[in-house]
Amino acid sequence: MKAIVVKPPKPGVEVRDLSQVIRHGSGTVKVRILENGICGSDREIVKGELTTARPPEGRDWLVLGHEALGIVEDSSDPRFKPGDLVMPINRRSYHGKCLNCLVGRPDFCEANEFVEAGMVGMDGFMVEYWYDDPKYLVKVPKDIADIAIVAQPLSDLEKSVEEILNVQRRFIWTCDDGTYNCRRSIVFGTGSTGILISLLLRTVGFEVYVANRRDPLESEAKITEEAGIIYYNYSKDGLDKLKSMGFDLVVDTTGASASLIGHEVEMLKPNGILGLFGFPSEGELTLRYDVIQRFIYKSNAIVGLINGQKPHFQQALAHLAQWKVVWPTVAKSLITRVVDVNNDKELLQVLNHKERGEIKVKIKWS
Amino acid sequence: MKAIVVKPPKPGVEVRDLSQVIRHGSGTVKVRILENGICGSDREIVKGELTTARPPEGRDWLVLGHEALGIVEDSSDPRFKPGDLVMPINRRSYHGKCLNCLVGRPDFCEANEFVEAGMVGMDGFMVEYWYDDPKYLVKVPKDIADIAIVAQPLSDLEKSVEEILNVQRRFIWTCDDGTYNCRRSIVFGTGSTGILISLLLRTVGFEVYVANRRDPLESEAKITEEAGIIYYNYSKDGLDKLKSMGFDLVVDTTGASASLIGHEVEMLKPNGILGLFGFPSEGELTLRYDVIQRFIYKSNAIVGLINGQKPHFQQALAHLAQWKVVWPTVAKSLITRVVDVNNDKELLQVLNHKERGEIKVKIKWS
Amino acid sequence: MKAIVVKPPKPGVEVRDLSQVIRHGSGTVKVRILENGICGSDREIVKGELTTARPPEGRDWLVLGHEALGIVEDSSDPRFKPGDLVMPINRRSYHGKCLNCLVGRPDFCEANEFVEAGMVGMDGFMVEYWYDDPKYLVKVPKDIADIAIVAQPLSDLEKSVEEILNVQRRFIWTCDDGTYNCRRSIVFGTGSTGILISLLLRTVGFEVYVANRRDPLESEAKITEEAGIIYYNYSKDGLDKLKSMGFDLVVDTTGASASLIGHEVEMLKPNGILGLFGFPSEGELTLRYDVIQRFIYKSNAIVGLINGQKPHFQQALAHLAQWKVVWPTVAKSLITRVVDVNNDKELLQVLNHKERGEIKVKIKWS
Amino acid sequence: MKAIVVKPPKPGVEVRDLSQVIRHGSGTVKVRILENGICGSDREIVKGELTTARPPEGRDWLVLGHEALGIVEDSSDPRFKPGDLVMPINRRSYHGKCLNCLVGRPDFCEANEFVEAGMVGMDGFMVEYWYDDPKYLVKVPKDIADIAIVAQPLSDLEKSVEEILNVQRRFIWTCDDGTYNCRRSIVFGTGSTGILISLLLRTVGFEVYVANRRDPLESEAKITEEAGIIYYNYSKDGLDKLKSMGFDLVVDTTGASASLIGHEVEMLKPNGILGLFGFPSEGELTLRYDVIQRFIYKSNAIVGLINGQKPHFQQALAHLAQWKVVWPTVAKSLITRVVDVNNDKELLQVLNHKERGEIKVKIKWS
Ligand SMILES: [Zn+2]
Ligand SMILES: [Zn+2]
Ligand SMILES: [Zn+2]
Ligand SMILES: [Zn+2]
Ligand SMILES: [Zn+2]
Ligand SMILES: [Zn+2]
Ligand SMILES: [Zn+2]
Ligand SMILES: [Zn+2]
Repeated sequence: MKAIVVKPPKPGVEVRDLSQVIRHGSGTVKVRILENGICGSDREIVKGELTTARPPEGRDWLVLGHEALGIVEDSSDPRFKPGDLVMPINRRSYHGKCLNCLVGRPDFCEANEFVEAGMVGMDGFMVEYWYDDPKYLVKVPKDIADIAIVAQPLSDLEKSVEEILNVQRRFIWTCDDGTYNCRRSIVFGTGSTGILISLLLRTVGFEVYVANRRDPLESEAKITEEAGIIYYNYSKDGLDKLKSMGFDLVVDTTGASASLIGHEVEMLKPNGILGLFGFPSEGELTLRYDVIQRFIYKSNAIVGLINGQKPHFQQALAHLAQWKVVWPTVAKSLITRVVDVNNDKELLQVLNHKERGEIKVKIKWS
Repeated sequence: MKAIVVKPPKPGVEVRDLSQVIRHGSGTVKVRILENGICGSDREIVKGELTTARPPEGRDWLVLGHEALGIVEDSSDPRFKPGDLVMPINRRSYHGKCLNCLVGRPDFCEANEFVEAGMVGMDGFMVEYWYDDPKYLVKVPKDIADIAIVAQPLSDLEKSVEEILNVQRRFIWTCDDGTYNCRRSIVFGTGSTGILISLLLRTVGFEVYVANRRDPLESEAKITEEAGIIYYNYSKDGLDKLKSMGFDLVVDTTGASASLIGHEVEMLKPNGILGLFGFPSEGELTLRYDVIQRFIYKSNAIVGLINGQKPHFQQALAHLAQWKVVWPTVAKSLITRVVDVNNDKELLQVLNHKERGEIKVKIKWS
Repeated sequence: MKAIVVKPPKPGVEVRDLSQVIRHGSGTVKVRILENGICGSDREIVKGELTTARPPEGRDWLVLGHEALGIVEDSSDPRFKPGDLVMPINRRSYHGKCLNCLVGRPDFCEANEFVEAGMVGMDGFMVEYWYDDPKYLVKVPKDIADIAIVAQPLSDLEKSVEEILNVQRRFIWTCDDGTYNCRRSIVFGTGSTGILISLLLRTVGFEVYVANRRDPLESEAKITEEAGIIYYNYSKDGLDKLKSMGFDLVVDTTGASASLIGHEVEMLKPNGILGLFGFPSEGELTLRYDVIQRFIYKSNAIVGLINGQKPHFQQALAHLAQWKVVWPTVAKSLITRVVDVNNDKELLQVLNHKERGEIKVKIKWS
Repeated sequence: MKAIVVKPPKPGVEVRDLSQVIRHGSGTVKVRILENGICGSDREIVKGELTTARPPEGRDWLVLGHEALGIVEDSSDPRFKPGDLVMPINRRSYHGKCLNCLVGRPDFCEANEFVEAGMVGMDGFMVEYWYDDPKYLVKVPKDIADIAIVAQPLSDLEKSVEEILNVQRRFIWTCDDGTYNCRRSIVFGTGSTGILISLLLRTVGFEVYVANRRDPLESEAKITEEAGIIYYNYSKDGLDKLKSMGFDLVVDTTGASASLIGHEVEMLKPNGILGLFGFPSEGELTLRYDVIQRFIYKSNAIVGLINGQKPHFQQALAHLAQWKVVWPTVAKSLITRVVDVNNDKELLQVLNHKERGEIKVKIKWS
């Protein structure tokens, strides 16, 4: 059985013939892989840079892949039938004891104890087939199969937006028409994450700016235009202008220097919130006492955002279906490259390098 | 009519005979002052250090005092009768247009536009009598008149705890018995604010540490012992131990250097929250990128906390009544000094200097 | 200017040439009508049976029509441009003073004071063009124009589901995977309302039964099959079986006899909720004391459900877009008849009679 | 070891010397009984009328008593020390598997599976001592020991008020000053339950009417006067007047005929809610279709209310402490009779008969 295998923390990746059968939880549903998505985390593992990555206990290798679309081949669970399209949830409860894990929300595990498919202590889905637990499988409507793979990264952002709206329930944050249409948001970063959360905030009704240090690529220009998102080049137009405009919501997805966060804090309007999604990879956040005074005075909040669970996968699939209709150009732009799993050269290339303008690269099994 | 008057932003304070009658809003209830409380904000105004302080429009002076207990002398509102004890709300809506102001919560004013009695654009309550609006008056039970003045500063902390619990509703934060008894909190600062929020968190059911850079004063020792609060001297026992213990809730009330906040962030357990109450007066908060990574990974949050409104005054009075019974020593320790308004020398002294171990100083009118 | 006009409480309807220009609120956006929907309320007005119907003050006639899709022809509001497709909100605040009205939610008006376009004190939208207030206009994506008219009745059900989920927040109602997939619901009635709320509950993740006293029509069979809804003929299979199965959610949309509600109460599982959407038109609800005992013991709830507002229109349009992709047959089945506004005979027919299997009849203007 | 024992479903009660040691759950805390409370449920068991009552599995007898105050005699749990006053929680999870049970809220058990001390499948606390599980013990401040026994019945009402406020969060129910002071409530029934929930609603800030079919007893008059509650004799002043006044909240605690509930529904203002606490013991609720139409149109709700858990016991103790200070007459009136456990005659009398004006009868062990 063909599989893409890594040996974290060592760098490297190989396509291998696996003798072992992969089985998760009850394992009552046999899933054949159709497609995998690739993202920055996969590449970090391949490069040996993701320090939290580790194989399941008792061996030195791990099947890669946390983004997957599969088809049910066999099932002893009445909720899944052969031919059903499914996506597996990638983060799963490990100890299963804290209350948030028990209610199906290991994204809020109090012990920070969970396994992550293809990353931390659990095999991923870049493998011909595996046996899975129905609890961690989400059904995928056939008519969105072409872009469904995006639902995994999108699920994290569904959870993020849900969490932001929940934090803001401590006061009235809806507008005088009951919507969020009067709320102004800005997303820093135009990678896959930045684009997807911008689309989501637009869907929820926000005015949305998306910011990067350069002019938009053609693909970014098309997406933002169709979705009514305003692109902002802050290397050209500056951060100060954003501070004087003020935002109800700032989301950082850059994964770049922590120093940017200091500027983002100063962009918050009264009651405004800063959501941190991307892990900064260097630098320091510095806030002078008077900036903190204003943060307090304005009832501001900062919140760390990670990981979607089953309800967020389902919501992500619903939004992808909606986008296919209301933003057809956006929907078509989400998959920026398709690689045949049998094309070893191209496969290794996409597993090692991010392309300019990449939103989602997918590997097609056949 | 005797009044204590300041002229912000100029330093200084004087006891003056006022010819002008003070009237707020509808002014349908005449209130005679019984007692005023004094806090750090009053002293900052007297010293000319509170830069946001300003008189009502059109004049250069302001009646001081945002903490007050009065008695109704006359009322055309059926809800208030002569002889009723009342406390006035100090922060009030100015423009009255944003939704949070309209629902009686100018603490969350989106425009950050409000007046604050005795501080910002509105006369305070250090005056023989004034006419007030019933909307901003809270009834005080006679049997807690002796400590009721504490309800004003306590109201800010009632709001703070309410806000913290609301932010934490985004996951399950109650324990497996439905209470908050398994949650560990730490409060930095043992001034009036630090003591009061520690008592409140204990009342809500938290395990509570309160931290300062020195051993506890005798008064602090008595209070923390009776209320089951653990006193922690971090200059002796260190901040690292607190980081390795981990806390579900950290509250900063020090108003000291912003640099302490960086340490506080590192004390948060998964799902933990840092509430910033006191305005830091100097220094910088610095967070290295890896600290921010952990903040995100743990779904942590930071939130700025200010200002209680009418529901919080009512809740504060309820808690003071409760404390009189369950923590009699605590209740007796809250008023650390009483000054006769006619004793000019002592009056000026307490308006200018904070005493060691001070919780609440009150001025008695007669 | 052509308009369809009624004179409630008198029966009758006429197509008339109107000299008067219709203007609502600020009236800064000129909207040309494209389509109207017709529903049971319109027919009750035409028959003189809707006793709450009344013209605007000062005249004896009213433009009919609360379901409308239009195109912006002229606008002095920057948010709306000529060529934009829009839907008007039909229920609007009248007095504008209660807090729920102020936050844009007159569906929860405390005074029960509002106007309803084409029904109560406000002209409707069966008119060539009118001037409207941007606050009450919702933008419609062009690619769902064909079924967008359904968003008006659907908005009521979006609000209903939101309200039900809010009431159920008093305990944990999500399942052990964080979704609502383990929750079983039943909707009584297969009219437009029954079908639409069934689809919505399915979208949210519920297991859904839809019940009527007869076998499904062919159109109903197609819809329920595609959406995975179970059709139940309770005249054949009985109500007792439903009582012994138990449901987490029962929704009544029958608008028939109140006596059915008594049976519905007995179908509730512990923590279950009964939502009443349709106004019963006759009969009595009778609950014996022991049924009420079980209702209390099981922490059950009954809630009245009415009227969606702007956020619900937006959500309805999002769901219609989603359904076009995931349930194409359903989407195509929603419009059961299109009538040319110039075909007087057919127009009068649909305004007077409901067809078997009707979901949504629309009038096309040209 | 002395114990008061019943043999449900058979009638009768006896004081017996028990050889068996009573142990619940982990049993790590030994509790010596100080006081028991008696209520209607105890008497129903004694009379053989509570059909749900049953002994623990495998025997035919049950220790009576679900209301208890004890003192810790021995403990291997660090949270409880000898000498601590404690109250045991009476309803406990049985299966422990549904999510609400897992988060410590068996009051919302989805399976309706739990045991109830002294009633259903679990020994009660009318016994010299027992071993208990710390999870189900609540600490009691010494200064409220005299009335602490009231916290058990009060806990049910704390939960009820919490649930009502949660259900009403679906819209803005607070007033324009952020409080509940503008909300008008009425409680039917002036038994222990009716009096306690009236006091609680007053504490939360509501305007409160309490209604019965007769003039108030002297004790009721004193309590309602001190707490500012309005007593209403509806046999004299009629139900129609109440319907035309309108109430935001109606609570039924009568446990009388279900027919009264029909009148209560008609008293609801828009957005109003009816809470059913007492089990009606006879009759039928009848609602004509037009009453149901208005119920729906006004967004009304009906909710069944039962059983408090640990957080509600803690809140009940807090309120009792508060009431001792703000309503001293009320506090003194709550215990209407104290019976020595060794006085067999009086004991049997209070176990069989309710006294006129009874609020709480307690048995004192010595
Ligand atoms: Zn990824
Ligand atoms: Zn966990
Ligand atoms: Zn102060
Ligand atoms: Zn405001
Ligand atoms: Zn309609
Ligand atoms: Zn209103
Ligand atoms: Zn009882
Ligand atoms: Zn349970």
